[in-house]
Amino acid sequence: MIQRPRGTRDFGPAEMAKRRRIEQAMRDVCARYGFGEVVTPTFEHSELFTARSGQGIVDEMYVFRDKGDREMALRPEITASVIRFYVNELSTMPKPLKLYYVGNCFRYENPQSGRFREFFQLGAELIGAKNPETDAEVIALAVNCIRAAGLENFVVRIGHIGILKSLVHAEIKDPQVAAEVLRMIDKEDFDAMGDMFDAKAIPRKLFDRITSLAEIKGEVELLNNLEPSEATEYLKEIFDVLAVYGIEDCQVDLGIVRGLDYYTGMVFEIDAPRLGAEKQILGGGSYTLSELFGGEPVFSTGFAIGIDRVVLASEAERPIEAPPALDAYVIPAGDDMRKYSFGMVSRLRSQGLKADVDLMRRTLSKNLKYAASAGARFAVIVGKEEMSKRSVVLRDMKSGEQRTVLADEVGAEISKSLK
Amino acid sequence: MIQRPRGTRDFGPAEMAKRRRIEQAMRDVCARYGFGEVVTPTFEHSELFTARSGQGIVDEMYVFRDKGDREMALRPEITASVIRFYVNELSTMPKPLKLYYVGNCFRYENPQSGRFREFFQLGAELIGAKNPETDAEVIALAVNCIRAAGLENFVVRIGHIGILKSLVHAEIKDPQVAAEVLRMIDKEDFDAMGDMFDAKAIPRKLFDRITSLAEIKGEVELLNNLEPSEATEYLKEIFDVLAVYGIEDCQVDLGIVRGLDYYTGMVFEIDAPRLGAEKQILGGGSYTLSELFGGEPVFSTGFAIGIDRVVLASEAERPIEAPPALDAYVIPAGDDMRKYSFGMVSRLRSQGLKADVDLMRRTLSKNLKYAASAGARFAVIVGKEEMSKRSVVLRDMKSGEQRTVLADEVGAEISKSLK
Repeated sequence: MIQRPRGTRDFGPAEMAKRRRIEQAMRDVCARYGFGEVVTPTFEHSELFTARSGQGIVDEMYVFRDKGDREMALRPEITASVIRFYVNELSTMPKPLKLYYVGNCFRYENPQSGRFREFFQLGAELIGAKNPETDAEVIALAVNCIRAAGLENFVVRIGHIGILKSLVHAEIKDPQVAAEVLRMIDKEDFDAMGDMFDAKAIPRKLFDRITSLAEIKGEVELLNNLEPSEATEYLKEIFDVLAVYGIEDCQVDLGIVRGLDYYTGMVFEIDAPRLGAEKQILGGGSYTLSELFGGEPVFSTGFAIGIDRVVLASEAERPIEAPPALDAYVIPAGDDMRKYSFGMVSRLRSQGLKADVDLMRRTLSKNLKYAASAGARFAVIVGKEEMSKRSVVLRDMKSGEQRTVLADEVGAEISKSLK
Repeated sequence: MIQRPRGTRDFGPAEMAKRRRIEQAMRDVCARYGFGEVVTPTFEHSELFTARSGQGIVDEMYVFRDKGDREMALRPEITASVIRFYVNELSTMPKPLKLYYVGNCFRYENPQSGRFREFFQLGAELIGAKNPETDAEVIALAVNCIRAAGLENFVVRIGHIGILKSLVHAEIKDPQVAAEVLRMIDKEDFDAMGDMFDAKAIPRKLFDRITSLAEIKGEVELLNNLEPSEATEYLKEIFDVLAVYGIEDCQVDLGIVRGLDYYTGMVFEIDAPRLGAEKQILGGGSYTLSELFGGEPVFSTGFAIGIDRVVLASEAERPIEAPPALDAYVIPAGDDMRKYSFGMVSRLRSQGLKADVDLMRRTLSKNLKYAASAGARFAVIVGKEEMSKRSVVLRDMKSGEQRTVLADEVGAEISKSLK
């Protein structure tokens, strides 16, 4: 047997019905927020991703050379492609540009719970402005996507990368050490940071200031304990707009640093605590990236949602309800009724019903079994006598009740019961 | 500037709105026919595709080695993956299995009109039976997908690979020569076939029989001119069931051979004549494939639709209508009205409207321009005086008419006009 590649997945119809339901709910929110969908190629010149994320990303990417000997990579994320598209073709469009995407990404990771080599993201980018309103708009979109996915237990944490970054860069002149410190803050690895401060004789007082800032997590009022700065006032304004948007339960978290250099201000993350170690289901923030790809600098705010984790988190709360696979299954009681049954199923389908018909020439009892296993809501049985009277037997597969119905009316009868 | 890879595409919001509309219409048909969606990995062990299509496919594939030194390929088609999934995990499910997919595929071709290195397919496979009903069901699904996509000018051609295949294999004993003859029939390259017949001293009479069969194209009644065989009777039954399904305009085409060996009986294609040389928008037929992947043999019938070509063909007939990008654009007439406007847009969105709000702090006149260029159906203007009376100015962006409406009623007013 040929197996699928390690770390990838096959999704069957029951799973896909749930996943599409969640995806569609999130797409609808994007459309209501005025975001339009974009689709970009599944692979790109690999320099696109190293320009964004540094050479380190190469180890995590699927890289190959095309027949023109150009190095290509399966995309590890989609933001870089959207901004490339913006720089190449969309930069003259009226601002702000509000774009979203749904797509598959690839990372060469060790497969483990909640991490796959091919995984799915929904993300959005608002391009063309940076102010508390645009940042709040993007956070509101993110929160409403997660709500629409059916998730109830999640935590929104909002920070500002400028607060810790400006402190670290002001006090630590060696940019490599500063970057290392920020990385440690991102990982909350304060023990290692303390050791490094001792080894490099960086004053302990700075360590204390950093950790006390990084530990500011909770109600927005915590910001009032800090000396007011541009960043703290900016964050408060974001929280104000979010409140107008009906989003009241966000936390401040000044410890969010996020790995990448191009974040410029607000950063935010959403966690689903039930997922344990892999609890982060969304990450985002405001950034500038276009100039790395040869464009004019432009402020943007965006996020990416891990669809796989949202599905996991949602199922951990309650079963995801998907519509029944079949509304009706038409059963000819014998060979003479076969063609009549095809006409029947064809009419039900044209009335918008999900309908199927026996294609295996089974007996009536085997067909009823199949209808049950296929999850059909109704069986429509075409018997000889009924056919001669232009009627059928309509059987409710839940209750087992059955009654004779005129063939012309069976579609309407089924539709009525489905409401 | 970093460019996208040659032969790939970026799709912007206007284009995607049309593409999703067509895709969704086809998905809805699949669901009504009782087909459930499956998703399989974007890359597979490359032997999966060579097992199906022969080593020749390697030249057309994007092949790479993963870090475990296994040879992988970006999928050039999705049928092989679906049947692998069936063999690995679904083979014990009740038959028939009705599966469909929508996905991207990759071919290393010279980019040209209607051909791209990354392209999109919707396909379906009915697994578990072979009889005229299953074949007709799959053809009916295919035709209704194309109809749902909005296409009116298309030609459905249905053939039976057994008729020419059995003749060729009966009369030409060398299997390589026989395969070459079938390939030439598929390409309709009868001149080259004649030359080969002469060179190999194959009787001219056979040539005439082959070409006269391959040229049988038209009404199903043409089959009555042939000596009845299992294949001709089988084809007639398919046409009978299709008529019951309301599909009356199909042609017989005995010249359809299709490249691949595993087709076993009925084969069919759909063309959109307006597309010229690249007119084929769908190909399919009945086949057995699972035993190539280590499974038990099982009869299947399937097809794949080229979504890109369907979109092209549909646009060649008439513009594809997509819903407006925005129902409403909320404009604060001044800074004091900004927060109120955020509340307004939030309410419109929660009423299901696609609504946006000024995030650029523009003047009223610039905002009205933006609303027009963004394709907003209505502008909702929040002025100081109106705000104090809990009302807004509702401006119809098509007619230019505007009137004052209570803030509580603006969502309902807009919804009413959209119907």
